[in-house]
Amino acid sequence: MPEIKASELAEALGCAFLGEGDVLIKGASSIDKAEEGDLTFFANVKFKQALLTTAASAIISKEDVGRDDITVIISDNPIYTFARALWILFPHHKPAPSISSLASIHQESHVSDSATIMPFSCIEKGVTVEKNAVIYPGVYLGQDVFIGENTVIHPSVTVHRGCKLGKNVIIHSGAVIGGDGFGFARHGGGYLKIPQIGTVVIEDDVEIGCNATIDRAALGETRIKKGTKLDNLVQVGHNVEIGEDCIIASQTGISGSVKIGNWVMLGGQTGVADHIEIDSGIMVGAKSGIPWSLSAKKSQGWSGIPAVPHNKWLRIAVSMEKIPDMLRKITQIEEELKKIKGEKGG
Amino acid sequence: MPEIKASELAEALGCAFLGEGDVLIKGASSIDKAEEGDLTFFANVKFKQALLTTAASAIISKEDVGRDDITVIISDNPIYTFARALWILFPHHKPAPSISSLASIHQESHVSDSATIMPFSCIEKGVTVEKNAVIYPGVYLGQDVFIGENTVIHPSVTVHRGCKLGKNVIIHSGAVIGGDGFGFARHGGGYLKIPQIGTVVIEDDVEIGCNATIDRAALGETRIKKGTKLDNLVQVGHNVEIGEDCIIASQTGISGSVKIGNWVMLGGQTGVADHIEIDSGIMVGAKSGIPWSLSAKKSQGWSGIPAVPHNKWLRIAVSMEKIPDMLRKITQIEEELKKIKGEKGG
Amino acid sequence: MPEIKASELAEALGCAFLGEGDVLIKGASSIDKAEEGDLTFFANVKFKQALLTTAASAIISKEDVGRDDITVIISDNPIYTFARALWILFPHHKPAPSISSLASIHQESHVSDSATIMPFSCIEKGVTVEKNAVIYPGVYLGQDVFIGENTVIHPSVTVHRGCKLGKNVIIHSGAVIGGDGFGFARHGGGYLKIPQIGTVVIEDDVEIGCNATIDRAALGETRIKKGTKLDNLVQVGHNVEIGEDCIIASQTGISGSVKIGNWVMLGGQTGVADHIEIDSGIMVGAKSGIPWSLSAKKSQGWSGIPAVPHNKWLRIAVSMEKIPDMLRKITQIEEELKKIKGEKGG
Repeated sequence: MPEIKASELAEALGCAFLGEGDVLIKGASSIDKAEEGDLTFFANVKFKQALLTTAASAIISKEDVGRDDITVIISDNPIYTFARALWILFPHHKPAPSISSLASIHQESHVSDSATIMPFSCIEKGVTVEKNAVIYPGVYLGQDVFIGENTVIHPSVTVHRGCKLGKNVIIHSGAVIGGDGFGFARHGGGYLKIPQIGTVVIEDDVEIGCNATIDRAALGETRIKKGTKLDNLVQVGHNVEIGEDCIIASQTGISGSVKIGNWVMLGGQTGVADHIEIDSGIMVGAKSGIPWSLSAKKSQGWSGIPAVPHNKWLRIAVSMEKIPDMLRKITQIEEELKKIKGEKGG
Repeated sequence: MPEIKASELAEALGCAFLGEGDVLIKGASSIDKAEEGDLTFFANVKFKQALLTTAASAIISKEDVGRDDITVIISDNPIYTFARALWILFPHHKPAPSISSLASIHQESHVSDSATIMPFSCIEKGVTVEKNAVIYPGVYLGQDVFIGENTVIHPSVTVHRGCKLGKNVIIHSGAVIGGDGFGFARHGGGYLKIPQIGTVVIEDDVEIGCNATIDRAALGETRIKKGTKLDNLVQVGHNVEIGEDCIIASQTGISGSVKIGNWVMLGGQTGVADHIEIDSGIMVGAKSGIPWSLSAKKSQGWSGIPAVPHNKWLRIAVSMEKIPDMLRKITQIEEELKKIKGEKGG
Repeated sequence: MPEIKASELAEALGCAFLGEGDVLIKGASSIDKAEEGDLTFFANVKFKQALLTTAASAIISKEDVGRDDITVIISDNPIYTFARALWILFPHHKPAPSISSLASIHQESHVSDSATIMPFSCIEKGVTVEKNAVIYPGVYLGQDVFIGENTVIHPSVTVHRGCKLGKNVIIHSGAVIGGDGFGFARHGGGYLKIPQIGTVVIEDDVEIGCNATIDRAALGETRIKKGTKLDNLVQVGHNVEIGEDCIIASQTGISGSVKIGNWVMLGGQTGVADHIEIDSGIMVGAKSGIPWSLSAKKSQGWSGIPAVPHNKWLRIAVSMEKIPDMLRKITQIEEELKKIKGEKGG
């Protein structure tokens, strides 16, 4: 349990505050569920009503909230400041550095003294684990894998031979980095597996969700650039390149050789066809199917199967409901026209 | 191999039977594949023809099936009674209680003598494993995890710090309970991870499919209530609440803070947008996209992307095929109208 | 790094060649990224321009490419021949046979001397592992599992009790073979789990992607036939039968009791409803929803939700964009008709 004065917290955050600085912060919660002692934040007008009744003791907000009984910590970006406050309030549950005697570590590997290797992980020849990295139990690091500083690998993750992970990367439980890309050469008698001799590079500050799968390149590399976040169960095919600071929501699938720019957001369960390009800054709605390259000049937002500019899709989605009606009306119109022509002809 | 008289089985099930009670039941099968010695069941008129030819020795049915050579066990709910019979006929493959010396078990954890802990599982400080629970190999139970009586955790499952599982829960292989929710605060330089300090509660009798992922709450808890069943590869976001006795089919994704009532059924590959509510008793068709809250008063069944009442969707699905035709007809009509107006004008 | 003369490589492949046979091949790459010393291939007219500028030293092609400085290896099936060349050029990273002392192997199991069992894998009673098979770390093989010759099981895979895998099978990391099918019998108080007493059979030369899930049959077996390839995160329900040489792309879900013929291709994120049949040779577009059986006589290609013949779907997809326009036009037409009738009436 944290316990810090609101004034001290505001100072640590580099923010001004209004109201009682001595109030003790002992927890954090959303505005509608906060109790006495909690810190909360106000960033969405949807919760304006909750401002009147919240029991929070302190709130992070762009401006005063009109409540004398709540200390207001002023921030231009309340969500970001709240996230920073959580990092201060709650201890980072990082295990103490130690190399478990129950792990299997090849003698020709390089594990920093300040790294943590937990039981039943298997570290092959030529692997490097840099300082402060944490390898949870049941992890497999194949030959020549590189794990950068402060990177955390959760339980049951596999990182295959030769893949490189940067600093401050988080790989969540069960994810697979560097499995074989899906490539087969058809011939008379069936399919021959095309050896997947490329690799995967995960740059600094990337986060990969639970049970996500990032395939190694057939030739060359699959690359996920700095700061990009992938949610659970995302699939990334061989030779894909994802730019910086992208957000890829759960269960999205990205086919082979796709190239995605920076600051792209893909909604959940989206599918991206192979070999296409998505420009920087584009946002794609959930459940979209993207069969062609998306140009930011044409539209910043895209949705639908197949994907069209988001505004157009909104109009389509609304009118879809009316298709049965339209069908009926067209038949009516045709009959009336027949009648009109019949009358004229008659 | 089981071997039990039909009369004894009927008695164990608390059911009456018709025909020869001494016939030996040695197996179980579907009605179309049953062989002599097999028990089967009849619950779907689709299989009426198979009734005439099945080689089964006994059948569970609502009423007599008109076959003198088959013993009929009478039940109002044949599928349920067949399931109960399978539990009687086939031994429950539960490993004998034992704590493997190849597991890593923190000395400050509480593992019941009647529990089973298999090799290469790792049990952290403060974990409780109640009686008759089974932990298969390669499982990770983080600090302060609670595993209730009779609960079974299959291989390579991760249950993260602080998550609580009730009694008679089954977590299938590779599932991840309590991975971090997907939350980031955007700022000038990129994204800051929002600490996910909440937890996951899985109530009694819940079943979670293989490689499914249930994220921990940002603040508070993610909760799956009593009796609910999740299929393989289902994604549940942070702060979701799923009610009792729901059925969530494979590859469905439920975004953060969704609230689902009791007895809800979601078809496979459905996607549910964040912060919406689904009323108790609602059924959603496979592959639906749910961008808004679903009211049971408006409709019990919903389908489509975006989801509309199921009956409406059926009409839309049928008429979709006709859109190219409609387009052609509208052009024709416009031309005819032009002609009519031209004639009138002329 | 490989190093082989182009002439020797051509001979090993059984192909004729044009140009300098003594050039050394030291790597392989795609035509647009190749450097000196690389082998590449030409199979797609899209890359015709790259032919003029590629720095590759040798190229596999159906015919001469008009470049005196590149050795051309002639093949009717360049991709297939390139795949074969990769197998020659790059060492197969197979670990040397050895049974780790850190694995848990039941004494009543049968593990070939030429098999590899890596640390922290758990092999139960009655398991057979045939010659040259490789079991990576963290694998669980349940009672009576059979693993055929040369089969490779990647890290953290679970193969449940009684499942049988043929020769030359590859199961990628995190996949689960033989988890319980999703079957419950509804009754007054909730759902009773229907025991899943069947099994899974994976025939020779099958490949199963990372974190894919193949459920065991309720009764009888789930079967994946010879040569079929499943991509990452694919879900296969209980009692499914998939024919030979099928290609099932990532995140596709196949519901219970589906029967799929030979040489079928399913695009990514496709969903197949339970109990339907898909004829041999059928191709299904990505993101399709298949609620009914697909007949090859009616169409070889299918797409859409619900799936219709692919050509029809292309027309629908194009005309979808025009629905809002159609709606507007219909209203206009109705007004004009009213006016025409009004004028006539007036």
